[in-house]
Amino acid sequence: MDLRKYVAEGIGTFWLTFAGCGSAVIAAGFPQVGIGLLGVALAFGLTVLTMAYAIGHVSGCHLNPAVTVGLAAGGRFPARDILPYVVAQVTGAIVAAAVLYVIASGAPGFDLAKGFAANGYGEHSPGGYSLVSGLVTEVVLTMMFLFIIMGATHGKAPVGFAPIAIGLGLTLINLVGIPVTNLSVNPARSTGPALFVGGWALAQLWLFWLAPLVGGVLGGLFYRWLSEEPAALVTGMPEAPAH
Amino acid sequence: MDLRKYVAEGIGTFWLTFAGCGSAVIAAGFPQVGIGLLGVALAFGLTVLTMAYAIGHVSGCHLNPAVTVGLAAGGRFPARDILPYVVAQVTGAIVAAAVLYVIASGAPGFDLAKGFAANGYGEHSPGGYSLVSGLVTEVVLTMMFLFIIMGATHGKAPVGFAPIAIGLGLTLINLVGIPVTNLSVNPARSTGPALFVGGWALAQLWLFWLAPLVGGVLGGLFYRWLSEEPAALVTGMPEAPAH
Amino acid sequence: MDLRKYVAEGIGTFWLTFAGCGSAVIAAGFPQVGIGLLGVALAFGLTVLTMAYAIGHVSGCHLNPAVTVGLAAGGRFPARDILPYVVAQVTGAIVAAAVLYVIASGAPGFDLAKGFAANGYGEHSPGGYSLVSGLVTEVVLTMMFLFIIMGATHGKAPVGFAPIAIGLGLTLINLVGIPVTNLSVNPARSTGPALFVGGWALAQLWLFWLAPLVGGVLGGLFYRWLSEEPAALVTGMPEAPAH
Amino acid sequence: MDLRKYVAEGIGTFWLTFAGCGSAVIAAGFPQVGIGLLGVALAFGLTVLTMAYAIGHVSGCHLNPAVTVGLAAGGRFPARDILPYVVAQVTGAIVAAAVLYVIASGAPGFDLAKGFAANGYGEHSPGGYSLVSGLVTEVVLTMMFLFIIMGATHGKAPVGFAPIAIGLGLTLINLVGIPVTNLSVNPARSTGPALFVGGWALAQLWLFWLAPLVGGVLGGLFYRWLSEEPAALVTGMPEAPAH
Repeated sequence: MDLRKYVAEGIGTFWLTFAGCGSAVIAAGFPQVGIGLLGVALAFGLTVLTMAYAIGHVSGCHLNPAVTVGLAAGGRFPARDILPYVVAQVTGAIVAAAVLYVIASGAPGFDLAKGFAANGYGEHSPGGYSLVSGLVTEVVLTMMFLFIIMGATHGKAPVGFAPIAIGLGLTLINLVGIPVTNLSVNPARSTGPALFVGGWALAQLWLFWLAPLVGGVLGGLFYRWLSEEPAALVTGMPEAPAH
Repeated sequence: MDLRKYVAEGIGTFWLTFAGCGSAVIAAGFPQVGIGLLGVALAFGLTVLTMAYAIGHVSGCHLNPAVTVGLAAGGRFPARDILPYVVAQVTGAIVAAAVLYVIASGAPGFDLAKGFAANGYGEHSPGGYSLVSGLVTEVVLTMMFLFIIMGATHGKAPVGFAPIAIGLGLTLINLVGIPVTNLSVNPARSTGPALFVGGWALAQLWLFWLAPLVGGVLGGLFYRWLSEEPAALVTGMPEAPAH
Repeated sequence: MDLRKYVAEGIGTFWLTFAGCGSAVIAAGFPQVGIGLLGVALAFGLTVLTMAYAIGHVSGCHLNPAVTVGLAAGGRFPARDILPYVVAQVTGAIVAAAVLYVIASGAPGFDLAKGFAANGYGEHSPGGYSLVSGLVTEVVLTMMFLFIIMGATHGKAPVGFAPIAIGLGLTLINLVGIPVTNLSVNPARSTGPALFVGGWALAQLWLFWLAPLVGGVLGGLFYRWLSEEPAALVTGMPEAPAH
Repeated sequence: MDLRKYVAEGIGTFWLTFAGCGSAVIAAGFPQVGIGLLGVALAFGLTVLTMAYAIGHVSGCHLNPAVTVGLAAGGRFPARDILPYVVAQVTGAIVAAAVLYVIASGAPGFDLAKGFAANGYGEHSPGGYSLVSGLVTEVVLTMMFLFIIMGATHGKAPVGFAPIAIGLGLTLINLVGIPVTNLSVNPARSTGPALFVGGWALAQLWLFWLAPLVGGVLGGLFYRWLSEEPAALVTGMPEAPAH
């Protein structure tokens, strides 16, 4: 049973990283008709929406170490499962970056130095935003992401809609933040491309672990207080009502 | 219990203003791949969609003084709670503008004089629309917004879908009206950025309180007549069916 | 009771025409950041999605003479109500065009001769498409629109989702056909702007009554055969399950 | 009964090919305000979303030989129905290409040599991607498409949401892959336009049968293992709950 949960988290995070970063690398800047940052924001959100319906009932569909840790802080996930979840997520993201590399390198003019969708701040921010801007952006957006996840999967929220709220929530987060850091809110998604880009991407990777984890914990604790929930462990994703 | 409702309205309006205005300030005009007005319209709508699933069962998720007053006119909200809701909403919007300022000012070339997503008419309308055009636009669009909110949360409407109808309704409203006034339909959302821009933005702020409040009351009364509802007070957002 | 149904159809068609055509007139071609045909397609679809949740339980939310006639052909709507529905729809669309005119004429450089979102073929097709192309496009797309409406509101379809399928179906139809005829599939939506543009728009208006009505009847009959439905009259929109 | 299922698959695949490829041929490159690859991606996804609500309860709404074969591999579809489903799907796609040809050829400057939305690799890839890139892209994306379909229609997934997950999943897939192969993941959709373009499009058609079928089988088998499902045959689309 547990193996399947970890495999589900792995394949789900593969999908988030492959399709999200893939849309950015392959389609965002296509001449004339490219999908732009709006298309990339939609793509990241839809990876979560689709996987939440596909594997939400298997693993809870976190796909993100900051979500896993934030849900644990919010009293919704057992601490003993944090490590295997995070390992599965990071593994999936690294495989995703590898498969994306195989595809993207088959086009004329491919160049890893263009960034390969890695996250960055300062001179490696798409819009030249400072380290402080990047840090505040990642902390605040991850905090709000966890707040939405905690709320939309609460027992009093409408049943079955959480994947829409959470997936489109990630789209919204990307609509705001891509120019600042290329938008992470997800340490696994940041790690995959950074390993291929190397150099500055690895040197700046610390921020995309630290800020999302801090934001995730804050969001989990904040919603927990708001909803006065007992600390009982419940799964993060809604299951279908019994028939 | 009540404190939590007000905090929920505050954080929700923070999200609406931070992510909606943030998408406009940070990402709309990004060179080549910017999200444009379509992306901003989507962002504003998704702030409401995500929060409605996250806190609809806590506070009703108004996030907007015109919604609060309109629902009261429509017989769906107790008059005694109007003031604390509006105070919470305006507070959340001001905090949002402050956090957005911290992030946006970390980029080279940031300039408050570009507008910081404040609302305006006449020479401060994005498309140069007159005061009359702005007034009609804000009244009509807020009236229809309340009409949709009243209808989608009616007891005969499908359960659980109201956040989609209302959130995407706000997206639709933005798709029409951004060139006219930068689109408000929400006095709280207008107040946050106006305090930072100052000058003309504060001088024109009256319209973005007056027109949405008038439109909201009209929409609430109109739907109330249409549905022949009794004046009994019910919460604005659907709750999950009992399990 | 019946008066309220007609008023609901009127206000709904007002919304479809005002916000759909309004997005095209005001926001589609805004310099640099305009919403384009994609934004207009989304706007038209969201008018239907929002209204279907708001008034679907009141009037069925047709907002379109071709839908009303097509549902009658499909055995889902009583023939005696066709005339008042169509009158209400056309009235709503004309009021919408008038309000849009008030707003749009408040901007510098406004010019009715740019089209005011009227439908056309031949030299008045946005992409220069012929009368035959326009006729085939409007018949086929309206036929498929009715097919989707009949299917998504069928008793075996998931409850509550029809407004999403139908609204986004209209978005899809606009994504295909705007360059051909500026896309109608709705005689009421065509009539409003044509009255203001006059001249060629009125001379070509016949096609945007004929083709959608023919397509609507074909779609209604086709799905009726497919589903082997009895001819019993049922309302077109799903109602919320009884609580 | 069976005839109606095949007709439903035929009309559904007509819609996928007509509206998906139609949006690309007619609207993607429209000057200034064209819908771009983002609009085309949305259009393809919405064909599936709309049809899944309209005919999901009739035929399961596969619209794609790779989905039919993949669901059979996943134990969700009887092998004896594969052939008639595929025949119906390919027939629908060919009729769609014919109708689209009638419309598109009514515009000045129409030229089949521009591609007519046919799929290709190497020098016929929109972005010049190699055969290997195209093969990997089509296999991986079809595999993930079936994974999502199998998961979102699983008995434990929320009821009624599968069309949203699957339709927007196809949108996501298009957001990633259009520059690589013009994106197929569907042999029927590839066959229709290829017959009209002829030459290189027919010569490269083998890849758009081989790769999606391989990917579909892999996805079906993978999810089957993950969910430990028995091999009992169940329909691919959720039906409405009994009332």
